[in-house]
Parts: sequence; structure tokens; C-alpha cells
Amino acid sequence: MAELLKGKPVAASLTETTKAKVEELREKGVVPTLGIVRVGENPGDLAYEKGAIKRASQTGVEIRQYLFGEDVSQEELISAIEEINRDDSVHGVLMFRPLPKHIDEKAVCESLAPEKDMDGITTGSMAGVFMDTDLGYPPCTAVACMELLDHYGIVLKGKNVTVMGRSLVIGKPVAMMLMRRHATITVCHSRTTPEAFAKAGREADIVVTALGRAKMVGADKLGEGQILIDVGINVDENGKLCGDMDFDEAEKKAAMITPVPGGVGSVTTAVLMKHVVAAAAKK
Amino acid sequence: MAELLKGKPVAASLTETTKAKVEELREKGVVPTLGIVRVGENPGDLAYEKGAIKRASQTGVEIRQYLFGEDVSQEELISAIEEINRDDSVHGVLMFRPLPKHIDEKAVCESLAPEKDMDGITTGSMAGVFMDTDLGYPPCTAVACMELLDHYGIVLKGKNVTVMGRSLVIGKPVAMMLMRRHATITVCHSRTTPEAFAKAGREADIVVTALGRAKMVGADKLGEGQILIDVGINVDENGKLCGDMDFDEAEKKAAMITPVPGGVGSVTTAVLMKHVVAAAAKK
Repeated sequence: MAELLKGKPVAASLTETTKAKVEELREKGVVPTLGIVRVGENPGDLAYEKGAIKRASQTGVEIRQYLFGEDVSQEELISAIEEINRDDSVHGVLMFRPLPKHIDEKAVCESLAPEKDMDGITTGSMAGVFMDTDLGYPPCTAVACMELLDHYGIVLKGKNVTVMGRSLVIGKPVAMMLMRRHATITVCHSRTTPEAFAKAGREADIVVTALGRAKMVGADKLGEGQILIDVGINVDENGKLCGDMDFDEAEKKAAMITPVPGGVGSVTTAVLMKHVVAAAAKK
Repeated sequence: MAELLKGKPVAASLTETTKAKVEELREKGVVPTLGIVRVGENPGDLAYEKGAIKRASQTGVEIRQYLFGEDVSQEELISAIEEINRDDSVHGVLMFRPLPKHIDEKAVCESLAPEKDMDGITTGSMAGVFMDTDLGYPPCTAVACMELLDHYGIVLKGKNVTVMGRSLVIGKPVAMMLMRRHATITVCHSRTTPEAFAKAGREADIVVTALGRAKMVGADKLGEGQILIDVGINVDENGKLCGDMDFDEAEKKAAMITPVPGGVGSVTTAVLMKHVVAAAAKK
């Protein structure tokens, strides 16, 4: 039986720390404030927004909503973001994506100032995570992996970590953050040979999956006594949420494993608030 | 006896292609021009500059030199670079580093427009290589590795490549470029355990070393029949140039190996000219 690396205690601990920092900032007259930019009413966006608002209220972070209809023009959206850039009372922005198809999403993302980019959507934030500078903020989910590892006291220095997935949202930034913490990284992806994929999985100390493919990583791709971090959130053949790992198989071999749901995903809003407070403190 | 992956034929072939492109551009009235910014008279800089000027003359690229004394102020340097940014007749810039200690090198680098950054010294270029966009240009030496691999017909897709070194100049950008080309990458560095280091070296299809440590990688860290790319340029105990690999040992096991000197390093000025022409063509 592997130890379950649940996200909830990680989020709770982060929230406590953030709450204390918010109090300090409020005493200095700074009210850490997150702007949420949402276009349309995607149910997934609404659910995440609800979670973010709840987390904000637990920490004392203020939320300001910027809501637009599906038919909003690109110019309108960009000018709203440029106004937020200039607004000193809003310290960070979360913008839901994808945006409607008539909008050049990249142009809208780039209009956001990196120092207000709480979720790694700007070029500046990406450069920051690659170069290990404090420009912008990495994607919250990628940071959530690191917070979870740290919370459970998992040492990274000198460890061999296999990251499965090479997306800009998880795989690549997590690999960079792990390397910064002195882990040796291997990044596997869809073009990795099946043999190399399984070998990299089996031989690592820690495996992070961010493939977006339900139960793709089973016992054959994992070793004994590993630490397994599953970032995937997929729907299985029975319509149930599941990760990239076959949990039942993985759990038997692992020393520690994140559940899905209830693992990395439940830490992201706490990371988001941490980023808002960091941005507010920098001011 | 391993096949020697010499840099000279790679540079010659690149130079031919670049020369043809320069001719096309010149017919359209565009003279691809490289600005060289040099502070002081470091012998290494002067030698590289001489090589760049020679390579430029082979391709038809024009060189414009911006020379400053060691006592140049930061403001003076930045204002010169800002003037180059505005000057449509200069398409790219090579600036020698390190700059004198009284100058904030990062600030000077950032003052260069990424689209004129021929050697990956700006945040924009770094973001481009991480995100796989065409913003800026990766460091010439990192690109030289890729050009060399391509020239010798080495397929990267599905290959397991171990990169030794995690610097922003070579290790990280090469890892990103290899991943873009669908290689599976492992990045080792100074904090990798000796066992993991040797294992990653032995088990890879291709090994790229960029450690800056003379002859650090010997037979114990390499496998049989590999392709070995040595980016290190060091001085050995007898004052002779050598790579990060122990060439005599490595050469016995490898299928293909780059010499040092005469390998990757001799491709960089040809890459520099390729970047200048790409920048001029984008105009």
C-alpha cells in the first residue's frame, strides 16, 4: 500500500501561509487582488472560478471579475487587459482559455504584463521558468507539483526524475523546475520509443505524468518503491475521472502516489493565491 | 575507429547555402549586415571576431564594428545598442561577453531587440527556444550541434539523447531543440549522482557534452557504438585544447565522434551568418 500524496493538506498549508502574508500586506494598506478574465460560460471555467473564489476568501485575497460574452472582440479583450496592466490595485490575472476561435489567443495572452501573469500564459513567464529568473510566474499546475513534493518532504537533489509529457503547461516547466532543484531529468513524450518510455518510467526515482491520456502508464512502465505524481485529469471508460496512471496497478508498486482526483489538481488554486500575494508583495 | 564528425564540412555547406541566400537578398537591394559589439580587446574575442569577419566575407554578409574601450559606461553601451535596434541597415548583432564588471551585463543584453539577437543573449531568444517559436535566435553553439547532427544525416526522432550540462548557453537550449525534433532527452549535471551520470552516458544513443571540464567523460561514462558530440573547449594538463570527453577513450567505443578542436566549435560562425541572413530575410 503506497502512501497517498493527497493535495488537500498541501493546499491547506499553502493557504495558511498565504493568509498570514495577506494580513501583513493588508496592514500595510495593500489588498492583494486577483483579476479573473472569463469569456463565455464554459462549465469547466465556472467550476474552477468557483474554487478560486472560495480559496481567495480563505486567504483574504480579493477577486475582481472581468466577464465578457462569447462575441467579445479581440480589441475589446486586449484593451481590457491593458487597462488591468495599468491598474495598480489588481496584482495578478487569471484568464480562462481557450478563447473563442475568432480571437488570436496568443496576441491576447501577450498583452498581459508578465508581472501580472499568475498562470504562465505569457512569453515572459515562460522565459522566467526556462532561465530561472523571477520574470512572471510558471503555470499553477506545474508549481503545484513542486509544492506537493516539498510538502511531503521529498528531496529532489540528485534524484532521477522522469517527466512524461512535454507540453508548455506542465511537462517542460516541471522539467525546468526539477532541474533547478538539482534533479536529473528525463523527458519522454509521444515520440519516445515504447521501450525507452517503459525503461525511463521503471528506472526513475520519481515519475511525473502529464500526458492527458487515461491510464496510459501502468505497471509495465513503473518500478518498485517509486514516488508517483500524476498530473493527468482524464475521463475513463466508465465516465469517471482518472489520471494518466493506472492507479490500481501503480499503487501496488509505488512508495507514494498522488490520487486523481484529489492530488495535484487540488493544489492549483492555492498556488494561484500564492502567486497573487507574491505579485502584491513585489509592488 | 569511430567516424570523425568534423565541423569544417558542415560549416562549408552552411556557408554555401548562406552565400546563395545573400545573393538573392542583395538582388532585392538588401545587404545582410551583422553588427559586432566589442568592449576592450580580449584576445579570445579578437580571435573569434577575426573568424566571423572571414566567414562573413565568404558569404557576402557585411560586418559593421561597434568598438568601445574598457571604460565605456553602461549608458553609452545601451544607447549604442538602442541605435542599432532602430537602424534598419543592421540585421543582427553579436556582442562579446563578459562585459567589464562595472556594467550590468543583463541590462545591456536586454536592451538588444530579440529579432536582432543572433546569439541567444536576450530573454526573448530564450523564450523562443523554450516555447519553440521564432522569437529571437538560440545561441550559435547550440544550433551548431543541431547543424552538425543534421549534416551527417543523424536521425533524432525516437533517439535517446543524454545532454551533460544544463547551462543556458548550451545544455538547456540543446535539450529543447532535441526534444522539438522528437528525441527523448536526459539532462545530467554537476548534481547528478555519479552512478546516474555514468548510466545516462552509457545507455544513450547520442551523448552531448557541455560541461566545460577537461576530459571528464571517459570510457566508464560511455557505451558502445554511440554518436558523441563534444561541445566543451578546455585546456588539458599539457596546455592543449581538449573537449569534455577523453577523446582517446571515447573514440575507441563510439560509432561517430566530434573532434576538439575542429568539431562543433568550427561551425558556430557559419551558424552566425545563417542567423544574420534569416534576420535580413524576415525584414
